Amino acid sequence: MKNFGGANTGGIFMKVAIVMGSISDKEVVDKTIGILEKFQIEYEVRVISAHRTPFTAMDFASSAEEKGIEVIIAVAGKAAHLAGIIAGVTTLPVIGLPVKSSTMDGLDSLLSTVQMPKGVPVATVAINGGENAGILAVQMLSIKYENLREKLKEYKEEISEEVEKMDEKVRRR
Amino acid sequence: MKNFGGANTGGIFMKVAIVMGSISDKEVVDKTIGILEKFQIEYEVRVISAHRTPFTAMDFASSAEEKGIEVIIAVAGKAAHLAGIIAGVTTLPVIGLPVKSSTMDGLDSLLSTVQMPKGVPVATVAINGGENAGILAVQMLSIKYENLREKLKEYKEEISEEVEKMDEKVRRR
Amino acid sequence: MKNFGGANTGGIFMKVAIVMGSISDKEVVDKTIGILEKFQIEYEVRVISAHRTPFTAMDFASSAEEKGIEVIIAVAGKAAHLAGIIAGVTTLPVIGLPVKSSTMDGLDSLLSTVQMPKGVPVATVAINGGENAGILAVQMLSIKYENLREKLKEYKEEISEEVEKMDEKVRRR
Amino acid sequence: MKNFGGANTGGIFMKVAIVMGSISDKEVVDKTIGILEKFQIEYEVRVISAHRTPFTAMDFASSAEEKGIEVIIAVAGKAAHLAGIIAGVTTLPVIGLPVKSSTMDGLDSLLSTVQMPKGVPVATVAINGGENAGILAVQMLSIKYENLREKLKEYKEEISEEVEKMDEKVRRR
Amino acid sequence: MKNFGGANTGGIFMKVAIVMGSISDKEVVDKTIGILEKFQIEYEVRVISAHRTPFTAMDFASSAEEKGIEVIIAVAGKAAHLAGIIAGVTTLPVIGLPVKSSTMDGLDSLLSTVQMPKGVPVATVAINGGENAGILAVQMLSIKYENLREKLKEYKEEISEEVEKMDEKVRRR
Amino acid sequence: MKNFGGANTGGIFMKVAIVMGSISDKEVVDKTIGILEKFQIEYEVRVISAHRTPFTAMDFASSAEEKGIEVIIAVAGKAAHLAGIIAGVTTLPVIGLPVKSSTMDGLDSLLSTVQMPKGVPVATVAINGGENAGILAVQMLSIKYENLREKLKEYKEEISEEVEKMDEKVRRR
Amino acid sequence: MKNFGGANTGGIFMKVAIVMGSISDKEVVDKTIGILEKFQIEYEVRVISAHRTPFTAMDFASSAEEKGIEVIIAVAGKAAHLAGIIAGVTTLPVIGLPVKSSTMDGLDSLLSTVQMPKGVPVATVAINGGENAGILAVQMLSIKYENLREKLKEYKEEISEEVEKMDEKVRRR
Amino acid sequence: MKNFGGANTGGIFMKVAIVMGSISDKEVVDKTIGILEKFQIEYEVRVISAHRTPFTAMDFASSAEEKGIEVIIAVAGKAAHLAGIIAGVTTLPVIGLPVKSSTMDGLDSLLSTVQMPKGVPVATVAINGGENAGILAVQMLSIKYENLREKLKEYKEEISEEVEKMDEKVRRR
Repeated sequence: MKNFGGANTGGIFMKVAIVMGSISDKEVVDKTIGILEKFQIEYEVRVISAHRTPFTAMDFASSAEEKGIEVIIAVAGKAAHLAGIIAGVTTLPVIGLPVKSSTMDGLDSLLSTVQMPKGVPVATVAINGGENAGILAVQMLSIKYENLREKLKEYKEEISEEVEKMDEKVRRR
Repeated sequence: MKNFGGANTGGIFMKVAIVMGSISDKEVVDKTIGILEKFQIEYEVRVISAHRTPFTAMDFASSAEEKGIEVIIAVAGKAAHLAGIIAGVTTLPVIGLPVKSSTMDGLDSLLSTVQMPKGVPVATVAINGGENAGILAVQMLSIKYENLREKLKEYKEEISEEVEKMDEKVRRR
Repeated sequence: MKNFGGANTGGIFMKVAIVMGSISDKEVVDKTIGILEKFQIEYEVRVISAHRTPFTAMDFASSAEEKGIEVIIAVAGKAAHLAGIIAGVTTLPVIGLPVKSSTMDGLDSLLSTVQMPKGVPVATVAINGGENAGILAVQMLSIKYENLREKLKEYKEEISEEVEKMDEKVRRR
Repeated sequence: MKNFGGANTGGIFMKVAIVMGSISDKEVVDKTIGILEKFQIEYEVRVISAHRTPFTAMDFASSAEEKGIEVIIAVAGKAAHLAGIIAGVTTLPVIGLPVKSSTMDGLDSLLSTVQMPKGVPVATVAINGGENAGILAVQMLSIKYENLREKLKEYKEEISEEVEKMDEKVRRR
Repeated sequence: MKNFGGANTGGIFMKVAIVMGSISDKEVVDKTIGILEKFQIEYEVRVISAHRTPFTAMDFASSAEEKGIEVIIAVAGKAAHLAGIIAGVTTLPVIGLPVKSSTMDGLDSLLSTVQMPKGVPVATVAINGGENAGILAVQMLSIKYENLREKLKEYKEEISEEVEKMDEKVRRR
Repeated sequence: MKNFGGANTGGIFMKVAIVMGSISDKEVVDKTIGILEKFQIEYEVRVISAHRTPFTAMDFASSAEEKGIEVIIAVAGKAAHLAGIIAGVTTLPVIGLPVKSSTMDGLDSLLSTVQMPKGVPVATVAINGGENAGILAVQMLSIKYENLREKLKEYKEEISEEVEKMDEKVRRR
Repeated sequence: MKNFGGANTGGIFMKVAIVMGSISDKEVVDKTIGILEKFQIEYEVRVISAHRTPFTAMDFASSAEEKGIEVIIAVAGKAAHLAGIIAGVTTLPVIGLPVKSSTMDGLDSLLSTVQMPKGVPVATVAINGGENAGILAVQMLSIKYENLREKLKEYKEEISEEVEKMDEKVRRR
Repeated sequence: MKNFGGANTGGIFMKVAIVMGSISDKEVVDKTIGILEKFQIEYEVRVISAHRTPFTAMDFASSAEEKGIEVIIAVAGKAAHLAGIIAGVTTLPVIGLPVKSSTMDGLDSLLSTVQMPKGVPVATVAINGGENAGILAVQMLSIKYENLREKLKEYKEEISEEVEKMDEKVRRR
């Protein structure tokens, strides 16, 4: 768990929980962590499997709100049930990050994550879209924490500038 | 719940539980029920949603074995997590019956059901394959209950004969 | 625009904007509206096309925040660019609701909506998942508006009870 | 063929037959074998092709039951007919393990294995899901052999603990 | 069976066998029959299922050549194994006609039919392409029976003329 | 062009033409050639593109029959029109061999080859199925050339024996 | 053929040729025609099949330029080779309009049309996108005919206004 | 920007703009540039992102015509909105070049680019079809600039000759 003091965010020490189905998803999760650290969001990282530690998943989802978690990011591949199961238990917004597995090119992960039934949404981002899961969490939090809105605008400018630099480089040739 | 006396099967009154994610899957489930009744298998039918009644799903899966259930058939569509979640809790064999939904022609249901991670299999049958979920349950039970093996052979002959009758009809023309 | 007084939500009169690419998406949007009205969320409904009224789309996205909008729901089919374009302009969270079109069974809409590049997420829900777009918006708002959290818990119980009633009915037989 | 004495399982020496369509599927099969050995299940491994040695396939399927085989695992890729053909002949439960081939990313193997017609199910597991084919076989056998049920529970705990260890490691950071 | 005398074709009375997996494929088969009758090819129609009457399938395939059959057309849907199984037994050319089923839009049938392993081809035509299965059979036979070559040329002209008539009609407007 | 004397086949020197859309398909074609040489079939190999040398394609297709060609094998990838275009001109049987390209995993090649309209079939084999295109050609020729039927039976035995050897090896362990 | 006098376009009487593979594509083509008439573009409509009238297709493509045609629109379904074949012969820009067929939901038509090899492009529009084929033709012609550019701007405003009217209607409620 | 004097093309110095969503698409774009240089077309290369620099995209599209650009080539991957957004603003013809990304094998890029709604076409070429985007641009320009038509014919002969050389080489063996 990373704790950045939380002064601006009102003294609550945990905002985002990242839950991945397997340590093999860590590479994708690191991109999410990079974003959260950049925005100085307190976060917790867990390895919890919907299929191998289902009771831990239920406990985690049941107690997330009272622990001060405000957004959950669930990361899984193949028949990716983790985000859906957590969304079934908590009323917190759940971001689903589908991971490309060794077969089916991520289509199985994507469909398993996004095609949720009526009443239980999962906010799904692109396959292997680690950064985007992070940014979406920050956007959700920025509804409440106004300082994050400003940081998001700076970030938007940063990524604009990156593109502009590429543009400069290509045009100069 | 249907109870056929269970004389041949040793006095245990519930063998198969059919769990569907929504009453809208009932039409497909009726085909499964038709098979179980034909084979005089005791069964229980439930509507339990992995996403809308997750704790019931966990309780059901946790207590299935001690209630005398020997095979579970889980029926669901779209991001079909029901079979996978149950398989995460119980060590009973879980048959997954993917149901075609209004979009994606059942591909989402199929991939969500079959692409389970290492250690937690779901025995998946064809999309909307209600009868086959039933037959597979009977085949599993026939490992233990020898009289079912004989009935399966009779069933195999029946479906052979159906084809043979079609063949007769077509050849005669 | 629907305005419910906003007493509980602190006097701000517009929380959610629903933008659809065509009036033909209205049937799916009505499900979203149903949810927002149930949760007494103020909302605005617009028809804006990323391709036919692109400047309106840009203006809308640029001014959404200052108009008091806190979550945007973008609804589109086929090469569904609406959510992505809006997400490129605003830092508000954007929910993408892909609509099934007459060909490709919604796969084109889903992939066009969810597969966003690094830095610009769209929180995608199921194809034609009108209710889920609404619920996800409420969940995002509930980070800030605590009374919505309670209502979400009641809603979760409602949908649980629906399943339980179906379960009762099926078990009684 | 591996024979573990069979004391616990009542002196029958062959429980599971693994049939693969080609020696090139051996890598996936080795994962199945690993599971069966872990659970001390007697097994037989065969290379039989539905297309190149069809009569052997028929003979194998016809005589499997009387040789004491209780579950058959059929492993094949591309137009994967092996599981289906065997299931057409025997009434034993047949587990289908689709193997990813050099084209189509395993979708051809999966659909060829799972989409069986009414009356002749194949219990399909994930593409390349070697371990899961093994676990499913053990689960089926555990209906009859109660000691396997206990071992399955231990296995479930093992894989839980693996996830918990990953969780520990990630949380400690 | 239809017998046209066979004068031109040398007195052999059965050239083509059409085997369908189920009577429900009859509508597609009727298009094949229409072609064979147009070309005055002797044919036999059978309903044989790779899964429900596998031994009949084997017997049929084993004895086809000696009965004077020169080309086999196998028609099946879903996990369409019929063509492949027959091709595994006989050395006659086998035409596979995949039939669209109620799910997966025929993709399962197509891949199950065409993706045959090395050494055992199935000459696959379009999904539901009943006429084309017939024409392909005639083309194969025309290698040996020269009069069929002439008829094929006439047929080619006929279908050209149909298009030309459509063209006339459209141009005249 | 390879000429094996053609004594058994009646002194005609060219039986099969292999036409590929690009030299990059040569690796797959070499497998076809291997089969034709094994069966001592005279063949011709050409590089003709439906799109880059369309008139050559038309000329080739128009004159194939009179040059003594009895079966044409067309090999192409991506929007694979070669087989279809040739089949539009000639009445000889045309075998389509779809080649996997750098994107879409061969699905584009397969669908472009197999989904031919009414009246103009292409006998399609598996993606990259070089050997099978060859075997299918031999099977077609064997309708006329009886000695090929015998060779096909020997080949069938050979591939059976290969599987049997693999089976031996695996069983011995 | 429709001739609008062609004063503004310099006295040439045929600008666009629409070629469809079958009269069954007429419904989609009518949308294209509607656009061309709206922009007062001279056009010719033909039914020409790449597979059933291949020589007509070649002749048409060879002579199109000298007949004053400046853009060709080719409309076809399934293994849609028409656009590709024409593009192989002419150097005029060829617009490919893939048509949804009874199976595969148009994916076969799309991939067959768009996945053209290096050097021979087909300008592909959406499946069944009749209007868009027309608009694209007008856009191409507007490079040369400046008055069309103005008309295109008016059209763009028209479709904007349609969306704005829908927007008005929805907002007013 | 490359300027070839433009004598033949009437003294206008910029004909084609190539816009790519990211510098990572440069490898594909280089193939397009190669073609434009071969045909001595003046071009401009830009990196502009529909999502990261949306206002630049709008400005670019709005001012393209007055800067003398006559054809725009937009290159993007994943949820590829760039071509569509530009086509929404300008009336110039827009060529869409979908790029294969790390997941989904380019299908997401293709569908996002080609499936445009009524009224706003994107002239889509094959996935990663860099050369073809270039050739299509030249074909469009050749409607106005007659000297390009001649060059296109020479190019067509060149690529014919390449195939003929391959054919020679293969036949000689």
